[in-house]
Amino acid sequence: MSVNPTTPPHDPNCIFCKIGSGAIPCHKIYEDSHVLAFLDIGPLTHGHCLLIPKAHYRNVMEIPADEMAELSRRLPPLVRAILLATGASACHVLLNNGPEALQSVGHLHYHIIPRKAGDGFTIPWNPGKLDSQTAQILAARIHSGVAEGG
Amino acid sequence: MSVNPTTPPHDPNCIFCKIGSGAIPCHKIYEDSHVLAFLDIGPLTHGHCLLIPKAHYRNVMEIPADEMAELSRRLPPLVRAILLATGASACHVLLNNGPEALQSVGHLHYHIIPRKAGDGFTIPWNPGKLDSQTAQILAARIHSGVAEGG
Repeated sequence: MSVNPTTPPHDPNCIFCKIGSGAIPCHKIYEDSHVLAFLDIGPLTHGHCLLIPKAHYRNVMEIPADEMAELSRRLPPLVRAILLATGASACHVLLNNGPEALQSVGHLHYHIIPRKAGDGFTIPWNPGKLDSQTAQILAARIHSGVAEGG
Repeated sequence: MSVNPTTPPHDPNCIFCKIGSGAIPCHKIYEDSHVLAFLDIGPLTHGHCLLIPKAHYRNVMEIPADEMAELSRRLPPLVRAILLATGASACHVLLNNGPEALQSVGHLHYHIIPRKAGDGFTIPWNPGKLDSQTAQILAARIHSGVAEGG
């Protein structure tokens, strides 16, 4: 069963694999056989946490769909507990995939970043415009790609 | 079964519910009985897409865990197809939950934001420090909250 493989992928040089196995300590907030969640040691805001699969997958492009489902299933109760403990009412849930997207550890990890008014953090949101002709071509191309199995 | 409820939650005033039901058009890139993905009309980068559940849940705090799993299961093949079509090698996958976290439409939606070097977008990453004593107290508090059901 893919959510509990006999030999889950593991990288002996990966710091998150070491944290997941308990070889390196962390400020743990949740653990089960499949995932681990802990405080980020470089928090962007108060209560910034990480949620990782114990198995080693580099990013969302590489993780099997079933594993992604199992990991993400833990988000709602975890986020509620983080917001309750920090007094925040909002949060970003963020996966950075690949170096150009600021991924600093090559083991898939959800950032949960609590947000409050005046906390000093934000994401610059400067939307562009979607040209209709470009959009049609692009949407058709992506649609074909998904149909072919992504 | 929660992934296919008889009466899925619906908000007749929600623009994403209207897009999900087909009442408002979109540049569709993927659809099945449960989810819809389409191009964001205000893209942060080329190929910026949204993935939504057709049922109406405001955010990650409110969506049932099973629904979150089903939605997220679609991410890996979808992201691969988006990156293939745009030629990007990296991406952010982002949920903004609540107004203080920049959520502009109150219907849960994943942003998939392709990234390339020099694309002009970034997320300011200025990590703070985690005080050990504060961390222990906070981790224990979150841990209790998750154990009590989030």
